[in-house]
Amino acid sequence: MGTKKRLRDYGISIGQLPTGPKNKITDVQGVKVGHVTLSEGAIQTGVTCILPHRGNCFQDKVLATSYVINGFGKTVGTIQMEELGVLETPILLTNTLSVGTVSAALVEYMLRDNEDIGVTTGTVNPVVGECNDGYLNDIRGLHVQKEHAWDAICKASEDFEEGAVGAGTGMSCFGLKGGIGSASRVVRIEALDYTVGCIVLSNFGQKGDLLIDGRPVGKWIEMQDQSGHMTERDKGSIIIVLATDIPLSERQLKRVSKRATVGLSRTGSFVGHGSGDIVLSFSTANQVPHYPETTEVIQTVLHEDHLDSVFRAVAEAVEESILNSMVTAKSVTGRDGNSRRSLSEYMEAWLLQS
Amino acid sequence: MGTKKRLRDYGISIGQLPTGPKNKITDVQGVKVGHVTLSEGAIQTGVTCILPHRGNCFQDKVLATSYVINGFGKTVGTIQMEELGVLETPILLTNTLSVGTVSAALVEYMLRDNEDIGVTTGTVNPVVGECNDGYLNDIRGLHVQKEHAWDAICKASEDFEEGAVGAGTGMSCFGLKGGIGSASRVVRIEALDYTVGCIVLSNFGQKGDLLIDGRPVGKWIEMQDQSGHMTERDKGSIIIVLATDIPLSERQLKRVSKRATVGLSRTGSFVGHGSGDIVLSFSTANQVPHYPETTEVIQTVLHEDHLDSVFRAVAEAVEESILNSMVTAKSVTGRDGNSRRSLSEYMEAWLLQS
Amino acid sequence: MGTKKRLRDYGISIGQLPTGPKNKITDVQGVKVGHVTLSEGAIQTGVTCILPHRGNCFQDKVLATSYVINGFGKTVGTIQMEELGVLETPILLTNTLSVGTVSAALVEYMLRDNEDIGVTTGTVNPVVGECNDGYLNDIRGLHVQKEHAWDAICKASEDFEEGAVGAGTGMSCFGLKGGIGSASRVVRIEALDYTVGCIVLSNFGQKGDLLIDGRPVGKWIEMQDQSGHMTERDKGSIIIVLATDIPLSERQLKRVSKRATVGLSRTGSFVGHGSGDIVLSFSTANQVPHYPETTEVIQTVLHEDHLDSVFRAVAEAVEESILNSMVTAKSVTGRDGNSRRSLSEYMEAWLLQS
Amino acid sequence: MGTKKRLRDYGISIGQLPTGPKNKITDVQGVKVGHVTLSEGAIQTGVTCILPHRGNCFQDKVLATSYVINGFGKTVGTIQMEELGVLETPILLTNTLSVGTVSAALVEYMLRDNEDIGVTTGTVNPVVGECNDGYLNDIRGLHVQKEHAWDAICKASEDFEEGAVGAGTGMSCFGLKGGIGSASRVVRIEALDYTVGCIVLSNFGQKGDLLIDGRPVGKWIEMQDQSGHMTERDKGSIIIVLATDIPLSERQLKRVSKRATVGLSRTGSFVGHGSGDIVLSFSTANQVPHYPETTEVIQTVLHEDHLDSVFRAVAEAVEESILNSMVTAKSVTGRDGNSRRSLSEYMEAWLLQS
Repeated sequence: MGTKKRLRDYGISIGQLPTGPKNKITDVQGVKVGHVTLSEGAIQTGVTCILPHRGNCFQDKVLATSYVINGFGKTVGTIQMEELGVLETPILLTNTLSVGTVSAALVEYMLRDNEDIGVTTGTVNPVVGECNDGYLNDIRGLHVQKEHAWDAICKASEDFEEGAVGAGTGMSCFGLKGGIGSASRVVRIEALDYTVGCIVLSNFGQKGDLLIDGRPVGKWIEMQDQSGHMTERDKGSIIIVLATDIPLSERQLKRVSKRATVGLSRTGSFVGHGSGDIVLSFSTANQVPHYPETTEVIQTVLHEDHLDSVFRAVAEAVEESILNSMVTAKSVTGRDGNSRRSLSEYMEAWLLQS
Repeated sequence: MGTKKRLRDYGISIGQLPTGPKNKITDVQGVKVGHVTLSEGAIQTGVTCILPHRGNCFQDKVLATSYVINGFGKTVGTIQMEELGVLETPILLTNTLSVGTVSAALVEYMLRDNEDIGVTTGTVNPVVGECNDGYLNDIRGLHVQKEHAWDAICKASEDFEEGAVGAGTGMSCFGLKGGIGSASRVVRIEALDYTVGCIVLSNFGQKGDLLIDGRPVGKWIEMQDQSGHMTERDKGSIIIVLATDIPLSERQLKRVSKRATVGLSRTGSFVGHGSGDIVLSFSTANQVPHYPETTEVIQTVLHEDHLDSVFRAVAEAVEESILNSMVTAKSVTGRDGNSRRSLSEYMEAWLLQS
Repeated sequence: MGTKKRLRDYGISIGQLPTGPKNKITDVQGVKVGHVTLSEGAIQTGVTCILPHRGNCFQDKVLATSYVINGFGKTVGTIQMEELGVLETPILLTNTLSVGTVSAALVEYMLRDNEDIGVTTGTVNPVVGECNDGYLNDIRGLHVQKEHAWDAICKASEDFEEGAVGAGTGMSCFGLKGGIGSASRVVRIEALDYTVGCIVLSNFGQKGDLLIDGRPVGKWIEMQDQSGHMTERDKGSIIIVLATDIPLSERQLKRVSKRATVGLSRTGSFVGHGSGDIVLSFSTANQVPHYPETTEVIQTVLHEDHLDSVFRAVAEAVEESILNSMVTAKSVTGRDGNSRRSLSEYMEAWLLQS
Repeated sequence: MGTKKRLRDYGISIGQLPTGPKNKITDVQGVKVGHVTLSEGAIQTGVTCILPHRGNCFQDKVLATSYVINGFGKTVGTIQMEELGVLETPILLTNTLSVGTVSAALVEYMLRDNEDIGVTTGTVNPVVGECNDGYLNDIRGLHVQKEHAWDAICKASEDFEEGAVGAGTGMSCFGLKGGIGSASRVVRIEALDYTVGCIVLSNFGQKGDLLIDGRPVGKWIEMQDQSGHMTERDKGSIIIVLATDIPLSERQLKRVSKRATVGLSRTGSFVGHGSGDIVLSFSTANQVPHYPETTEVIQTVLHEDHLDSVFRAVAEAVEESILNSMVTAKSVTGRDGNSRRSLSEYMEAWLLQS
């Protein structure tokens, strides 16, 4: 890890806010990420896990929300997140047709850790996001097994790889290789430093539309490739997971989540029809116990007037996460010889000429 | 089949609109229902399938919508239904912890029938609803297998059983036995007869709250049982599936779906906190081809002014479906000796005294 | 005041929870209600004001939400309530075509009390609800003036009249006279008593559908009147305002608001197409200062598990408020000789025969 | 008119799709725009009207939807647009505190033209959008009168001015002068040409954030002005009105509306907390008669697969409309000597150096 060049290693930084020490979602204390990567021939897929905190997710739920930017997607678990405002499992990401299997695996994992579920208390709400990696991956082969999901959870750590790994193994972005990317921002509010972290599973866009910090790199790449204009339809998706230690209410988390669209737009996306663009957000600052000791729960909530810098942090972190997912992803050839080149192969030449 | 007494066999009818010939959701032409029932000792669960029409659901999608009355539930597939306004698979119902498995099975079923999915076209959006049957069923045992889902689809027919069958095998309703119930209504609009059909998976409510046609039968049963007052918390759910041949737009289907709450309320529900109360609706009148032949699609839509009688039909059909699910469900003893008595055991005595 | 017979004066009570001392929304401490009534010939309209607390509504905002049961209505102010989760003005109710005038009046009232608005701070979000009283009232005459709105605010007190008063002067309900009605419930949660209060502006429904505590009084009245069946279309509306001192978050207030549909359904409504059925809810327990002294605000929030009894309280209070609005409303003859009889004229005879 | 330099007059064009002949919303056949401008000293405000078609808006409603990007706003009329999917009045825009007055005026205008409203048929749903022009305008003075609203409707024509006119007279954008801007795009779908038109009322953003076609002009202007960094908070808003002749359903119009966020983001907005960012969209292709002749209405709807180019058209038209609103707006000094400079004053120098 760490040897892959990230966006800032090319001298490009997005926005004006400072990053956290790792410039990753794991700058938010307690958050961990794990991958299982299946990459062999026509099999280019995997699972990625985001753990919201170090404890038992079911016993101590984090305030959470989801936001559907575009709903051509199959993410599960959002109905209950909306109603109750909490996340009670790790978040797993995988390919579209494996959501059922990964969801079943996540339920089994939760049952193992919580003997009360389904007997003395209610059930559990698994949250699983997805994108369609069918261009590079033999998605009909259903190669993701329950064990892969369990492994991804076990492997979760503060340090994690980006690019063509985990759920991102077979993803495409702007006609190039997409996958997993991350970034973070530090927000100073009245002398206190908070962190906003983001991780994306990127799989959307048409080559000619790609922008880096507002500059039309996609058009330049098209010219290099003589690949013609808009030959493929945008059938992709993006899952955006936001984590923060700012004390936000569920309503505020929803407002914050909506600003992911700003970052997404600035990479060149038009939020295509065929895209499942979904944001999952949580705050580690306010946790809700499954078995409360008191009737009323005390929550601290940021005063609304301070949200503007949080919005800016989200937009910047999302934009940089997407670009990180692309520059760190190596070129991949998969199903039926389909291949996606890495953005990193174009970066030096583009920077020289621009 | 047919030997179980339904609500009308007790001389009670709900509302004023006429029913279809079967007084079931399958009065809507083309709709079929199938069950797989697992009932042995601590295993009291199953799968129920609703087929929207006789053709290929993926190739010819029906206009559809979902509506969340209360979102403490784990139904999958609604994000895409909302975005695109269509249903492209059969609807499967099962227990809460088996949604992943049944969802994976539904994906495999769709792949088998559609070789284009995931290769030359996009993926598929499985729709699976659920309730928690953990009181009677060893839900942690995860006894539903993929084969059960496939069987339920194969068994779908116009005639189908109600009560403690399929996904309804282990469900509880108002502290008695719940399960599968159905009803239909005929709506005459300007000399044309249309049909509204409903099927429910009932699993909610506290005994003392049950109303039959506005009359407080629940309180009377509590007195008979000397069971005390409100000892159990309402942790249930209800899945309500509505079908119609009325040409409704997705927006109109949403409006129609909301009236399910009226029927639900009139059975005595307060739409409890712990309840996943979800409506899935579709119209067979307007189908959307996966591969369109023309740029523009012609749709007929009912003029808004005629919706009132459709709303009435929905409220009546939902109320009667719930009551049908209860009177047709036999008493069941399951996990840890937990048991639920059938409402039918009280009906004669209650009718005599009232 | 007080001489009008309310529902309980007929020996009928709804549900099982105890009421507050006045059985009105003003049982919630600090809440006040005021009316201005215009009743002369063809002019049958007015304004009703609900004050959320005794202080300056703009400086100290109450947590609030709105919920649209059916959106054929013109209530203003809900977009900002949804985004920010607060109410910052009194709530005014009037007839549909006077919303603009009353809204302008409310803005002027707020400007008078708050010199900072529009100069050193932002603007203000007026909240005004409405129903269409055009059957009894010359609604095209636009008889409500700004002064009427200001008067209604000034007249607000803990004691207030129900029936054909204020905004309710010209309203119709189930083909009889509707208007203003109120009720309250006391909810005991772990030895603490909280209050849920409700006030409605009722203006919906068809005569034959009216239910009192589940009993079909509407059908009986139709027979008495030989008025035939369903001759009029349901073009009405209902505004439901809920107040509570329970510490609820905005998300919880939304959940609570949805249970108003249960009470509404039990009076016989099918939530007709032509109806603007809208709930406005606030909690006085958590106030948000316009000028915060700290970055983070401390809020107490009821643990979710205790919401069930709040839901029951809402359903009961809404049902009883609607029935109170009808039995307290005297018969009225208005525009073009149109008239609506009072439900109170039927009550004795109906109770005798039932 | 026509003498003001628009964005393309500086040699800058946004995106890749062709514009309509006027590059304004009125390229959509039948759409007209009118302004009333109040500009004298501390009074810097006005009214703008958008007419959806040449006929009677109430008798022939256009399919319509609204979308709230950020809801710190007071736009009225959206509840009913959402429920019924139609627009039945002209759209009026004005300052925040004048919404009530303009709304009352719009009701009176509709009553004059439609004798049935409120007597033999229901009421009417006025749609009025707003931004807060309080920085330049004495907004507390409530200078907009009903007559101004009526005038704006009367003055509506296919040719109309942009910049500091109508509702845009006192608006600010990115710390410079904002106001009214427009643009259009032609979308070719299978050999047929359709038009997407946009008009904005711009009033948002911080100076340093302004981007023109991805380039950081805001930062450059800040350096010229030595105005320091982010001294003002973003308290603005934007109303975006989209018109098209593409046959879209209400659901599709909603999807299309959401892509306005893409264009907005690309001008540098982070969709600030204090902003009421609202989209109002309509299609002239499918009209719904108030008095239908048939039970079922025939509608043509674009097949979903063709939406991608519509999304691109919306994003491009919104971005260009915002920039047009700025370059066409002259510098204005208003209330308390507050002033906003025109972006046009910087354009030549910026273009020279970049």
